[in-house]
Amino acid sequence: MEVFERTFEESVSSFKEMLHNNRMTRFRTEFQALHNYDQAKIFAEFDADERNKVYQYMAPSEVADVFDALEGDDLHLSEEYFLEMENVYAAAVLGEMYADNAVDVLNNIDNREKVSLYMHLMPPKSAREISQLINYLDETAGAIMTTEFVAIQEDYTIKQAYEHLKEAAAQAETIYYVYVIDENKRLKGVLSLRDLIIYDDNRLISELLNPKVISVQVNDDQVEVAKMVQDYDLLALPVVGFDHELLGIITVDDVLDVMQEEADSDYSGLAAVDVNETHDSPFDASKSRLPWLVTLLFLGMGTATLISQFEGLISSAPVLSSFVTLITGTAGNAGTQSLAVAIRKLTNKNEDDEFFSSFSFELLTGVVTGLVVGTTIALVAGIWKGNFFLGLIIGIAMASAIVVANIAGSLIPKLMVKFGFDPAVASGPFISTLSDLTSVFIYFSIARIFISYF
Amino acid sequence: MEVFERTFEESVSSFKEMLHNNRMTRFRTEFQALHNYDQAKIFAEFDADERNKVYQYMAPSEVADVFDALEGDDLHLSEEYFLEMENVYAAAVLGEMYADNAVDVLNNIDNREKVSLYMHLMPPKSAREISQLINYLDETAGAIMTTEFVAIQEDYTIKQAYEHLKEAAAQAETIYYVYVIDENKRLKGVLSLRDLIIYDDNRLISELLNPKVISVQVNDDQVEVAKMVQDYDLLALPVVGFDHELLGIITVDDVLDVMQEEADSDYSGLAAVDVNETHDSPFDASKSRLPWLVTLLFLGMGTATLISQFEGLISSAPVLSSFVTLITGTAGNAGTQSLAVAIRKLTNKNEDDEFFSSFSFELLTGVVTGLVVGTTIALVAGIWKGNFFLGLIIGIAMASAIVVANIAGSLIPKLMVKFGFDPAVASGPFISTLSDLTSVFIYFSIARIFISYF
Repeated sequence: MEVFERTFEESVSSFKEMLHNNRMTRFRTEFQALHNYDQAKIFAEFDADERNKVYQYMAPSEVADVFDALEGDDLHLSEEYFLEMENVYAAAVLGEMYADNAVDVLNNIDNREKVSLYMHLMPPKSAREISQLINYLDETAGAIMTTEFVAIQEDYTIKQAYEHLKEAAAQAETIYYVYVIDENKRLKGVLSLRDLIIYDDNRLISELLNPKVISVQVNDDQVEVAKMVQDYDLLALPVVGFDHELLGIITVDDVLDVMQEEADSDYSGLAAVDVNETHDSPFDASKSRLPWLVTLLFLGMGTATLISQFEGLISSAPVLSSFVTLITGTAGNAGTQSLAVAIRKLTNKNEDDEFFSSFSFELLTGVVTGLVVGTTIALVAGIWKGNFFLGLIIGIAMASAIVVANIAGSLIPKLMVKFGFDPAVASGPFISTLSDLTSVFIYFSIARIFISYF
Repeated sequence: MEVFERTFEESVSSFKEMLHNNRMTRFRTEFQALHNYDQAKIFAEFDADERNKVYQYMAPSEVADVFDALEGDDLHLSEEYFLEMENVYAAAVLGEMYADNAVDVLNNIDNREKVSLYMHLMPPKSAREISQLINYLDETAGAIMTTEFVAIQEDYTIKQAYEHLKEAAAQAETIYYVYVIDENKRLKGVLSLRDLIIYDDNRLISELLNPKVISVQVNDDQVEVAKMVQDYDLLALPVVGFDHELLGIITVDDVLDVMQEEADSDYSGLAAVDVNETHDSPFDASKSRLPWLVTLLFLGMGTATLISQFEGLISSAPVLSSFVTLITGTAGNAGTQSLAVAIRKLTNKNEDDEFFSSFSFELLTGVVTGLVVGTTIALVAGIWKGNFFLGLIIGIAMASAIVVANIAGSLIPKLMVKFGFDPAVASGPFISTLSDLTSVFIYFSIARIFISYF
């Protein structure tokens, strides 16, 4: 659909023009008419001078709304943005932003003195909220939660709760759930705004609240958070500390970003490349891709060395060499399949997925697929070369290589998790390069045994 | 067989002549004597003036028959065709066409105002049929929307709106947005429940509604829907028809499922396996994995056949065989990288991603990575085997193979989209099996050229 009446480029240049011609009123009217996301996209196109004008034309609270919508690459520029503002202005903007977004920004500012200066200059309340969030581990519930939520005591009536919510509405990031806490801030239950609307004004929260409130621990992995929100169709998920005290909430819009992030990293891992690479030049792109390629190259040297051990065999039966890539390739494909299934099972946290049951599962799957593919190629090669001993060799080698690749594909990610690595880093190229080695060894070893027969 | 007594070109030029000489009767007789398919092919050859004559000479129903036969590329021109017609005439043509074909045409018209105008001018029955059909295309906004939403007229007050919402609260899937529509159900704007709570009871909706409501067309792809909800942090997204009438809404919980679905299918595609396979037995798992493995096996047979053409070369220089898997493997890895980046760009709908710019980008990236990897392996192999001619051969082969694989990896997904396939199906195993073929060919061809030197 059309977000801009004009194209994006057109709106950008027209806004730039207004800034250059000091058309403040016009700029304010047209810029404020846009959605924050579009404002952020346009703001990212401005140069230093133009941004400076924006800081003069717009109040910190207005700029804060724009920065709340900053995402991904644009976020990495936030250091530059804030350092070019007056300290007081910068602090005010950070104070007006949603605490979780302010933390994202501050995490992108390397100049620590500036950060602490901002923390001093901003309203104490905001500073408190931010410093609470800032020391949570990356990719945990605590890191993505916001502390701006609506909480009430259980002795409230519906009307009181509604009034309380009405006041909070301006501040809170979401007002669609009202959380009920006891005097020690422990999470007792939840009501949806829908409940507040449906029930009579003078009924008591205590008798209406849903005590079966779904919550996560502050240090739970963000993947679990996303899964929870997805499974239970929540708009927000409360985050509790070790004493079950309510620390914050995670809103569904942050969960959407988490899912995107996780999907991209899984996908990138499987292909051994950052699929979100937004490189300006092929050289940058190459720089990010080469490490994997070169690593795998040296891993592949192992296969080359291994093959060279069999040169004698090959020169006495050069026909063998025709099938090397076929066997390594097919085994690599099978390995990639079981790898992908294993990683997905792990990232989707299927706890029921028992180590050895899934091991034997992949083993058997490898045997079945190996037998089918092995028999097929045995016949094809046998007929093609008119030599069924050769066919047999290739078939057996193919089957064994597939079995090994399947097991490797399913085990390696599990082992990585065991040793505290992200299994998604075990990429398809990695597994297929690895299985090249085993496949070649199996192939030529079997061939050497059979060689006497032809 | 011969469709025309005269060649195609001859009939085209003769029809053009009749149009230029205003030979209406003759044109009608001869043109109407042709099969609709041939009429469409000829019509596609006419220029604007000639088409204009056709619109004067032929009734909407007759032109409708021609357009019913429009296919493929010609269909993409339909926007141009209809915009050059009188609105009433265009609407009549669309009304006379088969509804499903009319939908195809309308989907090719970006000018939404025109489209809704056509929908108005055509017979109501046809309009109904068309908007019906559009609702239920798979993986579109229409397919995932719900019709249970809260909509009000703009002459309501806040209090009235709130009361209306209170009644609807039990039914509606989400009550957190109230959509404002006119008497023709056209979407005029939106208010959040937050707005209803904050503003005074007796203020008018008409002065408070946000007219810049973000919406999607009922036939937009679900991926775009997800991106929109994610970018604009929406809890629900209104879905409108061609006349901008509000048909339904998509709630964020459905978007979470869409994102999961898309992420899984991309990931599955890259690994050539359904990562969500929940097979009870290894046999079921094998059944789902074998089709890919066997297909790729026969694709790989091509490589085997190719290598066997070089058996003579290999037996005279068996050292060559040591590096086959290294070259095919590395090229395959490079290809997988560019493939993954290309697919992600496509699925994330980066419209700014220009075909040839990205082509030359991948070409250059291939050259850079190819040079680095090629030089590395040239030195390593040269030192290892004490033969720098061999190193040179392998280096050049490696570099060329990487360049080709990079280009293939970035082009194949684009071509698949061009031909209407899901690019995600072009899996890593597919691209690496394919690049095995080219790599082997490049390697041994270069080797044969250099062979005389050692």
